[in-house]
Amino acid sequence: MSMVEASTGKPPVTHDSIVNLDHGDPTMYQAFWRGTGDRATIVIPGSQTMSYFSDVAGFCWFLEPQFETEVRRLHRLVGNAVEEGYHVLVGTGSTQLFQAVIYALSPAADGTPMNVVSPAPYYSSYPSVTNYLTSGLYRWAGDANTFNSDNCIELVCSPNNPDGGIRKAVVKSGRAVHDLAYYWPQYTAITEAANHDIMLFTVSKCTGHAGTRLGWALVKDKEVALRMIKFIELNTIGVSKDSQLRAAKILRAVTNGYDLSPAVEANRLFHFARRQMVERWNKLRAVVAATAIFSLPDDLPGYCTFFKETIASTAPFAWLRYEKEDVDDLEGFLREEKIMTRGGTRFGADGRVVRVSMLDTDEAFNVFIERLASLT
Amino acid sequence: MSMVEASTGKPPVTHDSIVNLDHGDPTMYQAFWRGTGDRATIVIPGSQTMSYFSDVAGFCWFLEPQFETEVRRLHRLVGNAVEEGYHVLVGTGSTQLFQAVIYALSPAADGTPMNVVSPAPYYSSYPSVTNYLTSGLYRWAGDANTFNSDNCIELVCSPNNPDGGIRKAVVKSGRAVHDLAYYWPQYTAITEAANHDIMLFTVSKCTGHAGTRLGWALVKDKEVALRMIKFIELNTIGVSKDSQLRAAKILRAVTNGYDLSPAVEANRLFHFARRQMVERWNKLRAVVAATAIFSLPDDLPGYCTFFKETIASTAPFAWLRYEKEDVDDLEGFLREEKIMTRGGTRFGADGRVVRVSMLDTDEAFNVFIERLASLT
Repeated sequence: MSMVEASTGKPPVTHDSIVNLDHGDPTMYQAFWRGTGDRATIVIPGSQTMSYFSDVAGFCWFLEPQFETEVRRLHRLVGNAVEEGYHVLVGTGSTQLFQAVIYALSPAADGTPMNVVSPAPYYSSYPSVTNYLTSGLYRWAGDANTFNSDNCIELVCSPNNPDGGIRKAVVKSGRAVHDLAYYWPQYTAITEAANHDIMLFTVSKCTGHAGTRLGWALVKDKEVALRMIKFIELNTIGVSKDSQLRAAKILRAVTNGYDLSPAVEANRLFHFARRQMVERWNKLRAVVAATAIFSLPDDLPGYCTFFKETIASTAPFAWLRYEKEDVDDLEGFLREEKIMTRGGTRFGADGRVVRVSMLDTDEAFNVFIERLASLT
Repeated sequence: MSMVEASTGKPPVTHDSIVNLDHGDPTMYQAFWRGTGDRATIVIPGSQTMSYFSDVAGFCWFLEPQFETEVRRLHRLVGNAVEEGYHVLVGTGSTQLFQAVIYALSPAADGTPMNVVSPAPYYSSYPSVTNYLTSGLYRWAGDANTFNSDNCIELVCSPNNPDGGIRKAVVKSGRAVHDLAYYWPQYTAITEAANHDIMLFTVSKCTGHAGTRLGWALVKDKEVALRMIKFIELNTIGVSKDSQLRAAKILRAVTNGYDLSPAVEANRLFHFARRQMVERWNKLRAVVAATAIFSLPDDLPGYCTFFKETIASTAPFAWLRYEKEDVDDLEGFLREEKIMTRGGTRFGADGRVVRVSMLDTDEAFNVFIERLASLT
């Protein structure tokens, strides 16, 4: 019974190579999972999970019951969201769940396409994923701050991708969808158990397993949840069971790790990731201060109910702004330095700001810091 | 390192229970995979395949190279499709690939929505999956036999779901998309290595692993393939790597099984499945002849280049027609007998015909046969 061969993935970073920090590829977490041994290893015999159905009599027929169990346990451990009284749905990443939500809440009451908005800077995928099929049910309507109607779905990403901001809905009577992909204690203080109507999460930004393509939603309203299930039926006839079983094992290893002795970082994912993020942000803030040509958002200290102390925010992306007048296209400027980032215009902002992933490997992050330091 | 717990799936069938043959849930194959032992078991350590990327420098960045390798090997073993000169793409089931194709070939040259057609009876999901988002790019335009324009995408499903017919494109200058989900030797004679421009396949109907949600496409044209990749990026940011790695292991077990000694059914998937299908069709044709109130499509004998003999077709679905005048809704009539099927109107046909899955467990199939026999 041989282990799986690692796929090619991304080539290793060297001092001369391109450093690709465009995507939020969470390879930082590999170091943690190399230390968990069999606790996080999954074994699936050839004859298992062959059926389309996970739980034919359950609320969501394609949801693996053990994945739901582990999602609920994890939220109870972390305290970042209320799970009692919510339906748990699974999706092929939170991207599919986002589409399931806008499908479920559309069209507008008068039959016209529902407007989908988010305050700028907003996640660059929101406009493209909303518009790529030119649906008659919904359409991207831009920056929520300048949208002058209440007839909309507002995407509330908090902490926000790209800038890490803590957000509340700005459109008073719109339908809010909370994208809480980054509401985990390694990125921000957990200040309350969120209890919004619709909340989206993803395995990739919680544990680092982006390749599983697995997200989940907590949904209060039964009819909305049923419409979301319908979307996923039509879009992909359910969600990979292999990924659900693997994610269940991974989430279980996270939660159970907090009961293990000794209480060390090797057993405690959020402690590992929090330390990494603090170290990376300290390095980045130091080099940005030294160069004097860039700026970063303020850290946002808050009392974290999980860590039981006041902590600064350490966002998964750096929203890096160029403060001089001689560069209008910071993405292009950094590309010349072999640093790939995502330019501000993709997020409804200007070209003097870029989004930089803080979640890549130590090697890639350190080369990025070196190159940034050389730009004084 | 514990094995995975089996999910609830569907409850076992008893003599009093409902027999659900509505979906084509391929649980017949479980018996084969219970006999393959470690050859088909996958082990994935916690730290593997975490990145979004499978092959960042490859043609399709989210395609696991070993899955591609095994797809090509399997086609060479079976001889059902030419793989040389084709791009291999992976999707979350062939349902996602179907949507990727119509996205890639749309809109029409004049910017209006592309018409999507298929000759009735056609797979019941084609209309709903084409129309659920009311896209401005494409729209379902119904039965290809009565469609009076060449400006369309024609879905050519062969052998056909639901009736097992062998098909060629009927619209002369439309863009043909070949859905070859059932072009495997357990269902039909392999008469040639198909070499159409766009061919769709799915793991679920080849090996029985529906829960992996994995399909693949063979695509000749580079630009079409790139547009399909773009769709899958936007729809789900790639495809579960866990499922791709598992499917690679499963397909490898199928191909390697034909090199094992002894050359017995326990090693040879298509021989196992072919015998099962022949036995089931023999039982079904016997009971249909005995009742004298139903009919079935003719079997379609052909010389199979894989089995190297002339074989009758043994389709994955029975397209069962009621031949008397007193029942207009055969689906409803059978539901009274606790047999769940899918009615003909869902396939663009009439209500006196239903589609019945031939791929369920032995228990479910045998109870179905008993109940049908009692309807004389």
